[in-house]
Amino acid sequence: MRPVPPPGETATAFRIPVRVYFQDTDAGGIVYHARYLDYFERCRMDWLRACHGPVSRLAVDSGVLFIVRAVAIEYLAPARLDDDLEVSLAPADVRGAQLDLRQQVVRADTLLVDGRVQLACVSAAHLRPTRIPPSLRDSLSSRGSTHPSPACT
Amino acid sequence: MRPVPPPGETATAFRIPVRVYFQDTDAGGIVYHARYLDYFERCRMDWLRACHGPVSRLAVDSGVLFIVRAVAIEYLAPARLDDDLEVSLAPADVRGAQLDLRQQVVRADTLLVDGRVQLACVSAAHLRPTRIPPSLRDSLSSRGSTHPSPACT
Amino acid sequence: MRPVPPPGETATAFRIPVRVYFQDTDAGGIVYHARYLDYFERCRMDWLRACHGPVSRLAVDSGVLFIVRAVAIEYLAPARLDDDLEVSLAPADVRGAQLDLRQQVVRADTLLVDGRVQLACVSAAHLRPTRIPPSLRDSLSSRGSTHPSPACT
Amino acid sequence: MRPVPPPGETATAFRIPVRVYFQDTDAGGIVYHARYLDYFERCRMDWLRACHGPVSRLAVDSGVLFIVRAVAIEYLAPARLDDDLEVSLAPADVRGAQLDLRQQVVRADTLLVDGRVQLACVSAAHLRPTRIPPSLRDSLSSRGSTHPSPACT
Repeated sequence: MRPVPPPGETATAFRIPVRVYFQDTDAGGIVYHARYLDYFERCRMDWLRACHGPVSRLAVDSGVLFIVRAVAIEYLAPARLDDDLEVSLAPADVRGAQLDLRQQVVRADTLLVDGRVQLACVSAAHLRPTRIPPSLRDSLSSRGSTHPSPACT
Repeated sequence: MRPVPPPGETATAFRIPVRVYFQDTDAGGIVYHARYLDYFERCRMDWLRACHGPVSRLAVDSGVLFIVRAVAIEYLAPARLDDDLEVSLAPADVRGAQLDLRQQVVRADTLLVDGRVQLACVSAAHLRPTRIPPSLRDSLSSRGSTHPSPACT
Repeated sequence: MRPVPPPGETATAFRIPVRVYFQDTDAGGIVYHARYLDYFERCRMDWLRACHGPVSRLAVDSGVLFIVRAVAIEYLAPARLDDDLEVSLAPADVRGAQLDLRQQVVRADTLLVDGRVQLACVSAAHLRPTRIPPSLRDSLSSRGSTHPSPACT
Repeated sequence: MRPVPPPGETATAFRIPVRVYFQDTDAGGIVYHARYLDYFERCRMDWLRACHGPVSRLAVDSGVLFIVRAVAIEYLAPARLDDDLEVSLAPADVRGAQLDLRQQVVRADTLLVDGRVQLACVSAAHLRPTRIPPSLRDSLSSRGSTHPSPACT
């Protein structure tokens, strides 16, 4: 199994704990592959909340929404019932209307799932691509990056 | 296992086929209990469509929505991966703002899941309980009841 | 809306926090009704773990499994995106091979969902109903009941 | 929106119809992005069944299982409640222990989701990568490819 990246690279990633329940597993005895996208979403929403506030207020406050534009996921090792996992997020690129994230699932020292998620910032009114507002971009870049913003933790 | 009711009782119920995939199962090797509510919803939406048209047009055409108010489900025998099931619906009571349905899941001659679902008709504008419009009530009563309406099949 | 029961009745119920994400909602803008069964399961598994240990060890340690035999749920008020909910569990009856639970979902002071879940204890080997082992029954009765077992908290 | 590929390229792809229900949507009013992986799985299982038989017999008959090793998905346009979609599959590469598939979701003439799914063939006994049995490989290559096998339709 692939070891997790050295701490220096992801020490500042945003992380949440996730426990595996029956609802997440399938008849193969492992976590169903689509469920990891659910885990990723929980981590993204908590991350957005950590710097900006509840995602349902984003449209009101900033007039924008984020939608998933693309995902690429490698499944390296399975998770199983009762596992206590850690789901992480680190911004890889933030520019224009696009937000690229690295998202991973780790159990103890083992990297189980390695993903990239591309979000598009769209206007809440017409769902058309629109630049990420500068104040939001700054807070997203600083939280869960390699240049942590202590004020935002 | 409990045999399915005699044909006379449910011969006119509305039925859809459902196949069991990995996404529906859990690590116990059987269909996860909450998935049957998903199966029930597919059957209800197809039934509403059969007499009225797509559910997304109901609010526009009639100014009403249906929301789930209560469910009661007995799990009699498990379904498994690759099973070909039949999900059925028969109106038990339609009056005022309330629609009571009997919904079941059957595999071959075996009743697996026996449920009752109570829907509330609410105004699309304020989500307040409102009488089921007479024309809609008539079409719901006639389709999937013990007095089938051939014109509605 | 129905107020939550007075603290005296459920003060000792087992509780977990659950946040609502997009994955839990539907196009009606509220939590999809089947998702509450997922919330209930998370609470049950955490409760079993609190007194006995991970559920995946139950079959090994005690030779038994719990399966859902019946559910009855009333939906009193909707939950929405970003809501922070509390999901609770209190044993209502534990005897023979049967375990009856009361499970609820609350947001602040409002009871949103009120449910009863009946579990059957079955032998892991043949999935036949079997008495709940006495030591397990005692720990289940004491945790999340009106007679809390401090040692088990 | 991107038009679907010309018929010549995918005329022989394996296709199934999928209807969108409330359970598939989220509070944004569109199909939740992870649900497309569920749609893809239904199509893969039906495809495996079309040439080989139920997937649950694959381990018994051939001693192998397929697990998802990687996915890459582009979301081009949203699907909504009541949409009637077509989910397709075409083998892109079959060799050694690896099976690469192209999977798409189309509504009328519009390509909504474009995906690639990589499966690994593993021994049912030890879950270690193992060559796809020749007879299975031949049937998988011929069905849903650009060289259709009429006998397998």
